[in-house]
Amino acid sequence: MNKIDEKSAARLLRENDNILILTHRNPDGDTIGSGFALLHALKKLGKTVKVVCTDPFPEKYGYIAHSNNDDVGENPYVVAVDVADMELIGAQYRAKYEHGVKLCIDHHISNKEFAENLCLRSCSATCEIIYDVIKAMDVEIDKSVADSLYTGIATDTGCFLFSSVTARTHIIAADLIEHGADFFEINRIMFETKSLGYFKLEAAALNTVEMHCGGKCAFMTVTMDMQKQSGTKDGDFDGIAGLPRKIEGVLVAVTFRETKDGNFKVSMRSHEPIDSSKICMNFGGGGHSRAAGCTFEKEALEENKKKLLSIIETELKGI
Amino acid sequence: MNKIDEKSAARLLRENDNILILTHRNPDGDTIGSGFALLHALKKLGKTVKVVCTDPFPEKYGYIAHSNNDDVGENPYVVAVDVADMELIGAQYRAKYEHGVKLCIDHHISNKEFAENLCLRSCSATCEIIYDVIKAMDVEIDKSVADSLYTGIATDTGCFLFSSVTARTHIIAADLIEHGADFFEINRIMFETKSLGYFKLEAAALNTVEMHCGGKCAFMTVTMDMQKQSGTKDGDFDGIAGLPRKIEGVLVAVTFRETKDGNFKVSMRSHEPIDSSKICMNFGGGGHSRAAGCTFEKEALEENKKKLLSIIETELKGI
Repeated sequence: MNKIDEKSAARLLRENDNILILTHRNPDGDTIGSGFALLHALKKLGKTVKVVCTDPFPEKYGYIAHSNNDDVGENPYVVAVDVADMELIGAQYRAKYEHGVKLCIDHHISNKEFAENLCLRSCSATCEIIYDVIKAMDVEIDKSVADSLYTGIATDTGCFLFSSVTARTHIIAADLIEHGADFFEINRIMFETKSLGYFKLEAAALNTVEMHCGGKCAFMTVTMDMQKQSGTKDGDFDGIAGLPRKIEGVLVAVTFRETKDGNFKVSMRSHEPIDSSKICMNFGGGGHSRAAGCTFEKEALEENKKKLLSIIETELKGI
Repeated sequence: MNKIDEKSAARLLRENDNILILTHRNPDGDTIGSGFALLHALKKLGKTVKVVCTDPFPEKYGYIAHSNNDDVGENPYVVAVDVADMELIGAQYRAKYEHGVKLCIDHHISNKEFAENLCLRSCSATCEIIYDVIKAMDVEIDKSVADSLYTGIATDTGCFLFSSVTARTHIIAADLIEHGADFFEINRIMFETKSLGYFKLEAAALNTVEMHCGGKCAFMTVTMDMQKQSGTKDGDFDGIAGLPRKIEGVLVAVTFRETKDGNFKVSMRSHEPIDSSKICMNFGGGGHSRAAGCTFEKEALEENKKKLLSIIETELKGI
């Protein structure tokens, strides 16, 4: 692989006519926004383009995930967007394109640096990089492109909330709004809408909150029963693990979620200086410093909870 | 009163040495951010400055509401920030300064246009205007000023979420981040922290949700018992009324909150095209098109709920 810059990426895209864009599995706003921003921009140059994903694009992205019926033929120029690792494109596309990806545009720290590689880890979203590539292709940003890029940036930053945001993130958002991004409607869909089932699950989960360590640690439990009664699906769980960390004074929050086999998925979220990853490693898990996880088998649940609490108590000592 | 521009406001501030800044009652991030951004900036010019409010500044604003011990004497130059109407500064300051305010900087549509008046209604926050005034005073933006202005802009836009945001809002945010605004910590305090009691109240309230009109209307109830059991205070209620509108598919959400006298404060939140204000006027209330309210007396609660639902059904017909 070669590290390349935005101009080289733009040149490669301009040189090719049949372009297939790969997005990552469980597609989120950034991979979908990156894929479709590129699709809408390349179509303005008269290219044949298709965005694919091993999972369906969730309905709520329908305002950007459209105009996607081109036939790129058997030998397209293959681009991966927001894909840190080829493993993330799913078996179906991996079998076909494992060694066929020509260009990778991404922002993940964990990027495996395959293909001609434009990975800028200081960007809050891959859409920030796609913005520069589209500018370098000399394509004017229209509403479709602006909506797509805004979606990726807003969703990957929690609406400009996370530490990954930079001054440049806001400068790009300003330009996208000037080019017609319907930011208010996008934000409403992405941040202000939850299913009634999800709300019911939140309510049930909040009722299980136990506070420990003088209010610095919160435990929360989500049972299979709660999930069944609320009618929520597996994918809805990601957000709920962030809930107990929001309780005033909490530095470590742990959510125990019962899975179909009766075991528990443990999700830990922390604030500085608590290293969640380090704590989870005690149980064979891992992750990031402020968000990590491990698994507790049902037989060992109570014992492991005690052990976990004792480790957290030690970590919190003197803070 | 005279309508003035940022340059004239800057000149007036530069010409005076003892400056008293009035903020509105129940102070929020925008009035506190505006007041203290101006204080920190004016102090850099060697001025004697004090920010006052009829209510205490909430503790969570401590990172900007400091360095506030100057004695501005008996005859200061009086500035009101984010104050639409003198009634909002509270009886104590009103008695003293009703006719003494020299400069008003604000962004509210309802601004009563008193004093030398710099009211720009297209700005998402008064802090956007204060930013321009500080620039026009030729004071360099330091971390204290940047933190103050970012606080006002972020809190008044729900972290860049509301329709009031413009490209310029993001351009200013970018500049504030470049000048040291600790946006991540500010956002954590303002948006990612809730009391355990508030969470418990949310959980209890969510369990009362009734869906009507094929899922387009949600009713939610908050009783005095729930409020007592959760240990929340009156001020904590503002946010909860926004909760049921977030339910997928809901166009009109109504929260019935029992007050100490046993009556119910009715808060309506809607999405386009439902006019909450128009509906609430049927019950002697009013407000904005997407957020309005009225009061139901306890004896008439059930009867009024029926009447309200019937009005909402009519409004939703054909949507």
